[in-house]
Parts: sequence; C-alpha cells; structure tokens
Amino acid sequence: MREKDFDIKNPRKKFQKTERVPPEGYECANDFFEDMYMDEDMIWMGQNTNHLHDDTIADAMIEAIKEKNYCKYPAPEGFSELKQLILDDLGLKDLEVLLTSGATESLYLVMQALLEPEDNVILSDPGYFIIGDFASRFADEARYVPIYYEENDYKLTPELLRQNMDENTRMVILIDPLNPLGSGYNEDELKEFAEIAKENDLYLLHDVTYKDFAQEHFNMEDYAPGQTLTIYSFSKIFGMAGLRIGGVISSKPIIDSIKNAVVNDLGVNIISQYGAIAGLKSKPKWFDSMRETCFENQRLIKEMIDPIEGVFLPVYPSQANMMVIDLSGAGIDPKVMSNYLVEKKLFTREGEYTSEDFGDRYLRISFSIPTEEIKVFCEEFPKAVEALRTK
Amino acid sequence: MREKDFDIKNPRKKFQKTERVPPEGYECANDFFEDMYMDEDMIWMGQNTNHLHDDTIADAMIEAIKEKNYCKYPAPEGFSELKQLILDDLGLKDLEVLLTSGATESLYLVMQALLEPEDNVILSDPGYFIIGDFASRFADEARYVPIYYEENDYKLTPELLRQNMDENTRMVILIDPLNPLGSGYNEDELKEFAEIAKENDLYLLHDVTYKDFAQEHFNMEDYAPGQTLTIYSFSKIFGMAGLRIGGVISSKPIIDSIKNAVVNDLGVNIISQYGAIAGLKSKPKWFDSMRETCFENQRLIKEMIDPIEGVFLPVYPSQANMMVIDLSGAGIDPKVMSNYLVEKKLFTREGEYTSEDFGDRYLRISFSIPTEEIKVFCEEFPKAVEALRTK
Ligand SMILES: Cc1ncc(COP(=O)(O)O)c(C=O)c1O
Ligand SMILES: Cc1ncc(COP(=O)(O)O)c(C=O)c1O
Repeated sequence: MREKDFDIKNPRKKFQKTERVPPEGYECANDFFEDMYMDEDMIWMGQNTNHLHDDTIADAMIEAIKEKNYCKYPAPEGFSELKQLILDDLGLKDLEVLLTSGATESLYLVMQALLEPEDNVILSDPGYFIIGDFASRFADEARYVPIYYEENDYKLTPELLRQNMDENTRMVILIDPLNPLGSGYNEDELKEFAEIAKENDLYLLHDVTYKDFAQEHFNMEDYAPGQTLTIYSFSKIFGMAGLRIGGVISSKPIIDSIKNAVVNDLGVNIISQYGAIAGLKSKPKWFDSMRETCFENQRLIKEMIDPIEGVFLPVYPSQANMMVIDLSGAGIDPKVMSNYLVEKKLFTREGEYTSEDFGDRYLRISFSIPTEEIKVFCEEFPKAVEALRTK
Repeated sequence: MREKDFDIKNPRKKFQKTERVPPEGYECANDFFEDMYMDEDMIWMGQNTNHLHDDTIADAMIEAIKEKNYCKYPAPEGFSELKQLILDDLGLKDLEVLLTSGATESLYLVMQALLEPEDNVILSDPGYFIIGDFASRFADEARYVPIYYEENDYKLTPELLRQNMDENTRMVILIDPLNPLGSGYNEDELKEFAEIAKENDLYLLHDVTYKDFAQEHFNMEDYAPGQTLTIYSFSKIFGMAGLRIGGVISSKPIIDSIKNAVVNDLGVNIISQYGAIAGLKSKPKWFDSMRETCFENQRLIKEMIDPIEGVFLPVYPSQANMMVIDLSGAGIDPKVMSNYLVEKKLFTREGEYTSEDFGDRYLRISFSIPTEEIKVFCEEFPKAVEALRTK
C-alpha cells in the first residue's frame, strides 16, 4: 500500500469558508436559527425575505401536493413553462435557463464551470459572502473591492473595476440591487461595464435577486450578450426562500458547459416549481401593491432615522427590500444592537454578515414585512440607540 | 492582457457526463420526461419511485405551507428533530447527519470533499451512474467492476473488490440493495468489506436508498466506524422523489470536512423537511403493509415471467423496489421493449440507464405501485415478448 499523506478518519478540509460567530448564548449558528424559526412572535427583518404575499402561491403548491405528483422525479431540467415564464419576466429572448435549488446553487455551478485556478474574480465589499466563498473554491482569488463610500454611491463603479482588475481577472460580480446596501445600477453604468467586459473577455455575473424592488432595472445581458450570467431567485419578491428555487440564464454554450457539471441531476423540487409558476403568473396582480408597501415602509424608517444623532442611511431610497443603517457615529457595535433587538423580538443582521471591512459600522434591516411590524421597529429602534449609545 | 487559452463565449466542458440518447421521437430527454410526467394514465415503473402512500406526508406538508413558514430561510443545517429521526431510523448513535437536496447532493459532496485527483473509486456495473460521474469529477478513475454474473450473486463481492483495487483505491461504493438488480448484502459480507477497508484505509460509501424494501438490512457503519459514509434518501420508501431530500451520515470529522464545502448554504427545502419528519414519525403505521404489497407485486411478476422462454429474473426476490428482467435469451433489445411498453402506458427502463456493459440484456422495472397496475403489466408483458421476440 502507498505511503499515506492523508488520515482517512480526519480528512483535511479542502476549502475555506467564511465562518460566523454564533450569537451570544448559542454553541452554533444553526441552534440560533432553529430557535428563531420556531418563535412565532419574531419580526423577520434579518434575511431579506418577503412576508407580504396572499395565498396564491401557497394554494398552487397545496393543489400540486394533493395530486401527489411529488412521488415521481421531476423532469431533470424542470418545466419548460417555468423556464419560459422566467425569460418573459426578464424580458429576454433566445437564451437558456437552468433551474437550480435556489440562486445559491446557480452561483456555485457558474463558478465551478467557468473559473480556472489562475483566475481572479472581482466583488464588492460589502456584498454577499457566499459568492466570494464559491469563487475562491475554483479561482485563485476572490478580490473584494471596498465600496462603502459616498463618492462612489456605495457601489462598484466601472472606474473601481478598472483600478482593481488585472490580466487574470475573469469574472465581475454585479449584485444589482446590492445586498446589503440597496444600491442599483443605471443603464449607462451597465453599458460601461459591458465595454470593459468585451475589451477584456470577462464574464459579468449579474445577480438580479432583488430586481423587482428597484424603481428601475436593466438587463446586463442586453449590453454584453454571450458573456453575461443572470442569476435569478424566487426567494425574495416571490416570498419563497424556504422553497429553494432559482436559476441562471445565459447563452446556450455557457449554459451547456454549466449543465455538464450539475449537482442535482434529478432536478429541482417539483412543488417549488409549481409555486414558482403560480408566482410568475400572478405577478401582475400583486406586484404594484407589494412595491408600494415596501416604499412606504422605507419612508417610515427614513422618517424615524433622520432625527437620530450619529445614525444615518447611506443609501436612500434603497432599490432592494433591505437597507443599511450606519451606527458608527453613535459608537454602537452592530452586533450589540442586533442582540438587543432580538430581545425585543426584532430579528435584524449585524454588518459582519455582509462585510469584512465595514461590518462594524452598520446594521442591515429588511422591510418587506407588514407595515404594522415596521411601526414596531420604528418605535423600538430609537430607544435601542439611546440605550446603547457610546458617543 | 494575457494570451487567451479560452473562448469566453464557448467555454470548455470541464467534466465528463454519461449522456443518454433520448427516446425515439424526442429531441432531448427532458421533453420525453415532461410528456411522461403530464400523462396521468402512465403506469410508473421506470424510476424506482413509490406510489403506495396514504395522505399522512402530504397533509403534513400542506399544513406547513398554510403556516407560510416557507417565506423564511430554513435553519442552514436543517431541523435537529429530523436529523435525530434519521439516526433513530438507522439505529445509529453518536454520528452526524448532513441534510441535502436528495441523496444525490450528498453523493456529490462526499466525492468533492474526500477524493483526490490520484484516487480511484470502485463501483459495480450494473450500478447507479450518477455516483460514478461524480467520482470521476474529483478522482482519477471511476473503476467499474462487472458483476452481472450468477457466480457472484449479481453483486460486488469482497473477493471482486480485492481483485480490482490497487494502492490508489480510496473509496468503495456499496449500493445496498443494488439499483438495478435488487441484490443485497448480508452481515458477513459487510464484515469482510470492513476488514478490507480497515487494512487499506478505504472509505466505504454505503448507499442505503432502498434499505427498507429488503428482508434484512445491516449498517456498514457498525463494522467500519470512522470510514463509512451512509447515504440516505427520502425518495423511495417515503415516496418523496420530487421533493428532493436526503442526506449523508458519518462521523463528526468526516461530516465537518464535507460541510466545509457545501453547495446549498441556505439549507434544504423546508416543506420537504416537514414531509420527511411526518414520514419518519408515521413509518410504523404503514411500513409492514407497504412491504407486503411490494413482496406480493414481486411474486406476481415472478409467476408471470417463469413460463416465458428466454426471459428470466437474475435476482429473486429482489431486496429493493425494483428488479431486472433479462431479455437476452429472447433476443429482444431492451430499448425496443421499453419503447413498446410506453405505447401501452407502461413506463419502464432499458438496461443502458444502469449499465455500460450489460445494458443490452435487461429491462428494469419498479413495483412499488398499486397491485392493480402490476396486473396490467403482467398482462401486457408476455404479449410484448411474443411481439418482439427474435429468438
Ligand atoms: C445577492 C444574493 N444572491 C443570491 C442569494 C440567494 O438566493 P437563493 O435563496 O435563491 O439561493 C441571496 C440571498 O440572500 C442574495 O442576497
Ligand atoms: C442507489 C441510488 N442512490 C441515490 C439515488 C438518488 O436519490 P435521491 O432521489 O435522494 O437524490 C438513487 C436514485 O435512483 C439511487 O438509485
């Protein structure tokens, strides 16, 4: 037998993963979540999920369960109807859709299929860590560009991209609107990114998970066809986070190379697919009123924040269903704030979930919840600031 | 900019994937599936799925949907209750469970976390291709051992393993009972595999997807602790294939290294988790009668097959919910047979889905369906043989 460079009972860990410190009083983050999940009184502002839906999607799923279609395997690539509805929703044509278990799996598959060990990937900090974690599994570097500055409108700009890329850059991550800040891109910015991508043979990963909360939204695909990957999720506007369904849209050769390395060879949850179809078909009915609620909720928060000394909203209005509250001027540790608010049954997120460099400055809150719940937050938050203020 | 060794618009395919020829009249396999899926009269004997459940699992999922818990993200590692129920079901202790989107994702994650580029993995032919495809993404070789012989009881034996392994073998795949043949392992065989594994520092992947259909079943984990990975699925005995839930059970250091490289960082479908909990809790109520139906269905098939010249059952009784019908003595191409049967509204599987070397000899049929449907099959099959016989 060969000389062993491994210990079969204690295998090495092949990848780096961003570790989260569990909240006070918990041994691991999962226990905290399970408790939160079970607490029916908790106001859910910590996950960018959407709690504003009527029963349309739920009813479609219940109908599908009753028919017991779930005993069979789904068609491995999913319902054609659903894929067409996604393209229609984006206003895109002649492209392929790959359905996955959440946008998360699409992000993974894209990185796995398209990145090489010598590549680097440009992302923003703040941003969404899972993307960088996946990128660093397959590429040499997830290169985070600090963007938490007013001068660049709290987002990655074409100029910042130019300054930070080099000859090994193969992919640029544009989360639009951005988690956590809610900053979005206009048409001119997308066109400029497209120019850079074409000149330098880059992939543009356009994560549009929060697109429907934006006042305006544009497709990167229209400006950089053949090198854009559009990442689509049912977790947010459709309120289906726990159902794990999403996808990636791109040109046929790119989707083919991704498909060749899928993980879930037996397809995506069939009940989630029925829910997604119902969500897309009913969208015209609920879309406007849901957005109005979100804009109104934002406005109430802004009104509440403005008078508080040392606290401000870097981006307003947010183009997403979440926003960042900067606490640094009041000398409050966001982690202390989120722990304090959990005691008041308000689940929010400290900045370290979305930023290595700036996480100590802000709290992230989601506002796609009923307005009465936002009013509870607006009452509790100023009291919390005064209780915790050190400056 | 660097000299480009890549074409961004036509990325190369990084992995090999077993390709299936779509059935006659279809451009791609997915279209065929979608049609099958929509055809309510089709008798479902082609996917090893289970269509014998009452409404217990369905009702639990409907209840969970009504509570709209799916708007939230699930706890990333899933419900502790579910993980404990899985361990209890297996009769195992002091181990970790990782929940995934189907056993499929567990198979992928195990290969990704534990295999190195110089390794080889031993599998049986016939067997379940997805496992080999995953293995060959991360290891040097998926080494298929031909086992379609009476002398080794149509399964991988400790002796065959010894003959086919070498110093680079790191993992052995034991599908128990085996898809497609339904052959299972007894205690002595598992002990012998365990000895080999201990002597040679091998991982034993024990895929117990079909365990509950067997007359007897044993845990590899009991004989090779610390180097066994038990793969668990809710797709078969629980009739939940379309809900995509399963998992992998192993010792803490091994599960930790797998967790470090998860794909679905935001957890497993919450409705499926509720269904799985209901399935495990209600199991004592339906388990015996479901097995009886399956044994009775098998018996009817055996009775029907025995008098037919040139056709036989290599393994009887099958320990799974499917069996193989060898057609070679009648000179019938299994693909022709399955196409013929689809016309009669009977969905079965030609051998090439589960074997490179022997796929031209057999048809695979699943029998965890109502007995009346089995009777339809028993009426149609002998006629099909006479219509297609060339010997
Ligand atoms: C930018 C971004 N992309 C993707 C996701 C994950 O989406 P899904 O739930 O569809 O996996 C999130 C979740 O928060 C996100 O913020
Ligand atoms: C041996 C074996 N393992 C795993 C699977 C996949 O199980 P799941 O549906 O849980 O992904 C199958 C499906 O047919 C199988 O035959």
